[in-house]
Amino acid sequence: MENLIKALLDGNKRACAKLITIVENEAEGYENVLKIIYKHTGRAYVIGITGPPGAGKSTVTDKLVKLMRKEDKKVGVIAIDPTSPFTKGAILGDRIRMNDLSTDKNVFIRSMGTRGSLGGLSSATQSAVKILDAYGCDYIFIETVGVGQSEIDIVKTADTTLMVMVPGLGDDIQAIKAGVMEIGDIFVVNKADKEGAKRTSIEIEMMLDFKKDWEFRPLVNLAIAQTGDGLETTYENIYKHRAFLESSNKLQEKRLCRNKIEIKELVQRKVSKLVKNLEYSDELDELLAKTITKEIDIYSISEILFEKIRNNK
Amino acid sequence: MENLIKALLDGNKRACAKLITIVENEAEGYENVLKIIYKHTGRAYVIGITGPPGAGKSTVTDKLVKLMRKEDKKVGVIAIDPTSPFTKGAILGDRIRMNDLSTDKNVFIRSMGTRGSLGGLSSATQSAVKILDAYGCDYIFIETVGVGQSEIDIVKTADTTLMVMVPGLGDDIQAIKAGVMEIGDIFVVNKADKEGAKRTSIEIEMMLDFKKDWEFRPLVNLAIAQTGDGLETTYENIYKHRAFLESSNKLQEKRLCRNKIEIKELVQRKVSKLVKNLEYSDELDELLAKTITKEIDIYSISEILFEKIRNNK
Repeated sequence: MENLIKALLDGNKRACAKLITIVENEAEGYENVLKIIYKHTGRAYVIGITGPPGAGKSTVTDKLVKLMRKEDKKVGVIAIDPTSPFTKGAILGDRIRMNDLSTDKNVFIRSMGTRGSLGGLSSATQSAVKILDAYGCDYIFIETVGVGQSEIDIVKTADTTLMVMVPGLGDDIQAIKAGVMEIGDIFVVNKADKEGAKRTSIEIEMMLDFKKDWEFRPLVNLAIAQTGDGLETTYENIYKHRAFLESSNKLQEKRLCRNKIEIKELVQRKVSKLVKNLEYSDELDELLAKTITKEIDIYSISEILFEKIRNNK
Repeated sequence: MENLIKALLDGNKRACAKLITIVENEAEGYENVLKIIYKHTGRAYVIGITGPPGAGKSTVTDKLVKLMRKEDKKVGVIAIDPTSPFTKGAILGDRIRMNDLSTDKNVFIRSMGTRGSLGGLSSATQSAVKILDAYGCDYIFIETVGVGQSEIDIVKTADTTLMVMVPGLGDDIQAIKAGVMEIGDIFVVNKADKEGAKRTSIEIEMMLDFKKDWEFRPLVNLAIAQTGDGLETTYENIYKHRAFLESSNKLQEKRLCRNKIEIKELVQRKVSKLVKNLEYSDELDELLAKTITKEIDIYSISEILFEKIRNNK
C-alpha cells in the first residue's frame, strides 16, 4: 500500500486507478490511504457538472478538459452514473472518450456506478476526488447524468457548479428551476444552434434576476459543445467564479463546509454500522419476542439498544 | 396526558385526534404516551392501500370502510400525502369524505403530510396506527397517494397490502411492476367499466404467475369503486389473506419484522440526534479549522467524534 501511495504522489496513473478502486470498494486499509494522502490534497479545483439528461454534459466536460490541457493543466474526471452497474469498466461516456482523452497521461477519467461503491456514491466520489487531488490534478470534474437529488447533493460540494442547459426543455425547466437557482454558479446553454436557445438563455437570466442579493451573480453563456463554440467563454466564466471565491475567502468557507458535511457522513456511517450490528444480535431477538406478549414495548427496547451504543458495550 | 390516554382507551374520538397530533408533532411526553398505550395495541388489523395516482384508492378505501361498518367494525383511516403541507386540516380526500363517513363515531379519518411530522412520515404513521389501535379500531387503513419508494416502505409494514390498479396504465404498469410484484397481497382492478379492464387484470395475473413459489398467491378482482361493484369480493380476498396469515403464524412473523424495523428506526433517530449535536459543537469548529492547514484530516476527526458518542461524553 505504501508503494502505491508513493507512486500516486509521483504521478503514476496506474497507482491512481488502483487506489480509487480501493477506496471505492472500501477494501482493507482504505481509511489509512485517505488519512495518509490527506495532507497532499486541497490543491485541486473541483468543478461539478449537472443538468438534464441529453444536455450534452459529457461533451461540455470533454471540451473544457481540452481547453485546460492547452494550458498544460492536469485534469481528472469522475463521471457519476447511479443507474450504471459498472464501476471499473468502460461505460458509454468512457468509450467515446477513450480515443482522444484517455491516452493523454495528464487526463484521468473514471466512471462510478452505485453498485460497487459500498459506502454510497457520495462517499465514493469524495474519496476519488481526494485521490485525484493527491495525484496532482489541477482540475477535477464531477459529472452527473441527471439532476436528481442525490446528484445535486454530490455536485454541490464542488467549488464551482456548472449547469448545462439545452433549448426546448419546455416545462422541464420549471421542474428543475428550484434546484437550478440554488446550485448553479455558471450556466451554459448548449446546442445554441437549435431553435429557442436564445430564449432559454433569456429565461435563465430572468430567473436569476429574480433573486437580488447574489454574492456572485451566476454567469450564463451560449455554446455549441460539439464544435467547441462558446466554451472558451464558459471556461472564463468558471475562472471568474473561482477568482471571486478566492478573493473573497469564500473558497475556504466552502471547503470548510464541505469538510463538515463529509465528517458528518463519516460519523453517521460508523454509527449506522453499530445500529446494524445490534439489529442482528440475539439480544434484540429475545426482546422482540416480548413485544408480541406485550411484556415490553418497542420504545423501551430502542432506549435499551441506544444506551448500549452510548456505553460502548 | 393521563386523562387523554384514559379517554382514548374509553373510545373518545376527540382524545384520539389530540393524541395523534401529539405523537405526530413529537410534542413533549409523546414517547411516554406511546409506551403507555403499547400494551393496548396489536388488536387492529392493518391494511395498506397503494397504487398509481388516479386509480381511485380513496374511493376503494371508503367503500371497504362501509362494508366493514355493516359488520359494526370500528375503522381508522390514515391518508398519507407526502406532498401535502396540511396535517391537521382537511385535504381533498377528507372534504369529500366529510359528509358520510366522518360523522360516524366509529370511523376515524386522518390525513398526514410531510410538514408537521417531525420524525418523518413513516414514524408518524406508525405512531398514529398505534393510537388508532389503542382507540379500539378493528381495521386501520394506511392509504397513500402514489407508488413512490417512501410510500412502498410505509405500506409494506401493513398486515395486508392492497394494490389498486386501473385499466389503461400502459407502460406505467411495467414501471411499477417490480414494486407491485413485491408488495401486493391483494389486487383490485378499479374502473372495470372502462375499456381494457379485463386485459389489465389478465396482465396482472400473468405477472403473478411468473413467480412460482408463492406462500400466498395474490388474489385479483375487478371492481367499480364508484358504485361498490366487486368490492365485496375484494373484502373477501383481504379476509382470505388474513386467514392465511393467522393460520400459518405468518401474521406474528410479519409483526415481529415490523417491530424490528420500527425499533431500528427509533435507535437510528436517537443516534442521528447525537450526531447532529456534535455537528454544532465548538469542538468540531476548532478541529475543522485544522483541516485547512492539514494539521488533521477529516477521517481522524470523524473517529474522534465517533468515540465521543460511544463513550457517552
